[in-house]
Amino acid sequence: MSIQTPSAASPLQPRPGPGGKHRVVIVGGGFGGLETAKRLRGADVEITLVDQRNHHIFQPLLYQVATASLATSEVAWPIRGILRGREDVRVLLGTVNGVDTASRRVLLADGDSLPYDTLVLATGARHAYFGHDEWEDAAPGLKTIEDATLLRRRILLAFEQAEREPDPARRDALLTFVVVGAGPTGVEMAGTIAELAHVTLAPEFRSIDTRKARVLLIEAGPRVLGGYHESLSAYAQAELERLGVEVSLGQPVTECTRDHVVFGGTTLPARTMIWAAGVRASPAAEWLGAPADRAGRLEVAPDLTVPGHPEIFAIGDTVSVARADGRPVPGIAPAAKQGGRHVAATIRARLAGRDAPRFRYIHQGSLAQIGKRKAVIDFGRIRLRGAIAWWIWGIAHIFFLIGMRTRLAVAVNWLWIHTRNQRSARLITQGEAQAPGDRPSGTLRADAA
Amino acid sequence: MSIQTPSAASPLQPRPGPGGKHRVVIVGGGFGGLETAKRLRGADVEITLVDQRNHHIFQPLLYQVATASLATSEVAWPIRGILRGREDVRVLLGTVNGVDTASRRVLLADGDSLPYDTLVLATGARHAYFGHDEWEDAAPGLKTIEDATLLRRRILLAFEQAEREPDPARRDALLTFVVVGAGPTGVEMAGTIAELAHVTLAPEFRSIDTRKARVLLIEAGPRVLGGYHESLSAYAQAELERLGVEVSLGQPVTECTRDHVVFGGTTLPARTMIWAAGVRASPAAEWLGAPADRAGRLEVAPDLTVPGHPEIFAIGDTVSVARADGRPVPGIAPAAKQGGRHVAATIRARLAGRDAPRFRYIHQGSLAQIGKRKAVIDFGRIRLRGAIAWWIWGIAHIFFLIGMRTRLAVAVNWLWIHTRNQRSARLITQGEAQAPGDRPSGTLRADAA
Repeated sequence: MSIQTPSAASPLQPRPGPGGKHRVVIVGGGFGGLETAKRLRGADVEITLVDQRNHHIFQPLLYQVATASLATSEVAWPIRGILRGREDVRVLLGTVNGVDTASRRVLLADGDSLPYDTLVLATGARHAYFGHDEWEDAAPGLKTIEDATLLRRRILLAFEQAEREPDPARRDALLTFVVVGAGPTGVEMAGTIAELAHVTLAPEFRSIDTRKARVLLIEAGPRVLGGYHESLSAYAQAELERLGVEVSLGQPVTECTRDHVVFGGTTLPARTMIWAAGVRASPAAEWLGAPADRAGRLEVAPDLTVPGHPEIFAIGDTVSVARADGRPVPGIAPAAKQGGRHVAATIRARLAGRDAPRFRYIHQGSLAQIGKRKAVIDFGRIRLRGAIAWWIWGIAHIFFLIGMRTRLAVAVNWLWIHTRNQRSARLITQGEAQAPGDRPSGTLRADAA
Repeated sequence: MSIQTPSAASPLQPRPGPGGKHRVVIVGGGFGGLETAKRLRGADVEITLVDQRNHHIFQPLLYQVATASLATSEVAWPIRGILRGREDVRVLLGTVNGVDTASRRVLLADGDSLPYDTLVLATGARHAYFGHDEWEDAAPGLKTIEDATLLRRRILLAFEQAEREPDPARRDALLTFVVVGAGPTGVEMAGTIAELAHVTLAPEFRSIDTRKARVLLIEAGPRVLGGYHESLSAYAQAELERLGVEVSLGQPVTECTRDHVVFGGTTLPARTMIWAAGVRASPAAEWLGAPADRAGRLEVAPDLTVPGHPEIFAIGDTVSVARADGRPVPGIAPAAKQGGRHVAATIRARLAGRDAPRFRYIHQGSLAQIGKRKAVIDFGRIRLRGAIAWWIWGIAHIFFLIGMRTRLAVAVNWLWIHTRNQRSARLITQGEAQAPGDRPSGTLRADAA
């Protein structure tokens, strides 16, 4: 891999502080990357954070954008804005497509490169289709703002098209929503779509009864919320069914098109599908030519360094690391944040010549919302469900949002949803390629304008 | 024009109420169309409102979405949601492409059609390029949510690209923002972009000084805010210049590309341009084969009916109508709303066999925000400027927003902007075709994902 040394004029040249500071390059502005930058405040380093997007996304609530409950700017913030006080941090918008470990440079898609002394890879994961990438068009996943607005568009447009669809079979397909995968995201999507269809939209249509819309949650495993205690899985399934969600267990999806889904031998005509069944790590492992697991996760040492490269750390969804008891560290926000905290502490220790701390992941519990005032929390020993769990879920999420303005805005939105069944962000925006057989065709073209 | 009669099963067939009600079809869910529907509450009619978008847009604040001050869902609401209580109204998402006045049917792009007894055309206007439609790609206008997010994307991306641009000339072009047309929208865009560059973003970049960004406001006429009193124009220009906006008067733009703009013989390299110079009415006149003025506005009788078609009304930006004193009714929201009110009153009068009222437009004044705590208001006799005008401007706009939740959210956003210089919606989302010479190229491709 050839390295292009930028010209002296390039702003990508490190601007060494007094004595030339230790250069830390962080790739990715998610939970892990941001936490690393935050925890390095005041350290004698020069930080460059590069991301291919200008914004950090609060993944745990992204499904509420897809279901028209929250605005995009309530779950995403410009990375520059988050780090605005930090003179020691440079934020760059750019796409990394490789790492030259010999010359210690991060390579960018446009030919530029970023020299580092310590590299932190926090590049996250994308959804995965188990070798069926052709399913992505039919069943998009939920990882980016664009994913969320695409799903929001498809979900809302399905009702609009059904309202104008004279053919009953086509109307039924438009009013059938399929969520693949019953992890937290799948459970939350299915529950919220059911509330949207059966409660929020019901009074607003004349030709269709949105309460008759079908919402299916298809899980290949034996139960919903597989990572949670059985009692919570059973509760979650019962509550989902009370909301009108049809739960199908033990049958993987074997085919997925814009017109139908096949699972357990049955073919179901459906026009809106959401993929929440699996993720694949970013190509960080390929950049380094380092070993990765089946899901593409970079295998790192217990101190989160890449074997053979003590100067390279990797954290969050992009890595596979075992806990003390041998169980894997889960791919959730708190794990990424704890990873970032550990990396920052290690860099500080190394600069001070102290021994680096060991990384110990502390599981703070698993939370999932099922529907209005219904949630489950698995703290391990303690398990909560129902309204009390929902209040803890809500308060915890509002607490972890960035900025008082957002906390206030989200709280107000939730208040409106729960007291008036109004969802604030029901906008069909941005065009997309038209699915075969879509009608009314004029509508899609017009919206695509 | 051939009419396709829908099958008996089509939901587009009117579903006559007891005795078969008078069918009113409203085309367009803007200020005029919505007001017509609202004012017909309780009348003995069956209303169908059709729009090619699912949402109503609060146009007067759309520029704040383009400048990252407000979220899209704070200036747009689903039309169904606004009319949710109204059993007598059917809302349809569809694109109208003609009217068959003989059979009294509105023709939709997908071949369906809507029968009417009374038709209300409230289809608005798009921006116009005076015969230079090729300029639209370089200098988009601001009429839709997509327009606003495209401009937001271009404005924010220009700073990101400048931060990574080693070539000084290219960096200067990236940091040059041109607003064409100094009406209220142009003035508000220019003032807000200047505040964004010179205040909000200043602390967040390392390689560039955003305070050096140039914001030009180019007006072909002799002064800014041409429709306002001279004293307010002079004040607005002085305030814009205090904000660092370079105002150019009396020189039309003669060329516009993604790389530069030409006006008054000078060629200025600039990578971000906004078009606020003119509008053209929707093709309603063409649908009817009726006379229109230079801007494509349908010429209607003083009672807002189309000559020769007492059953067809047209209101808002799509029409040209004279006031009692001969001056034209301006193309602003209050005029569209008053038109809708008049049409509803006329329909009620006709159904009751009463004489229809005459349409009298009452000008309530012109408002424009220039910048932080600076605005101008022209009530005709009374003229206000500065902080007092800004407070009236702000309160008036919050009052006219739809729903308490939005009012609260917008008020909070403005509070944050004015107390903390934080803008809440600084998201670069959705891809677009890459402009020639754009770099870093990787970035755009990545964002387009």
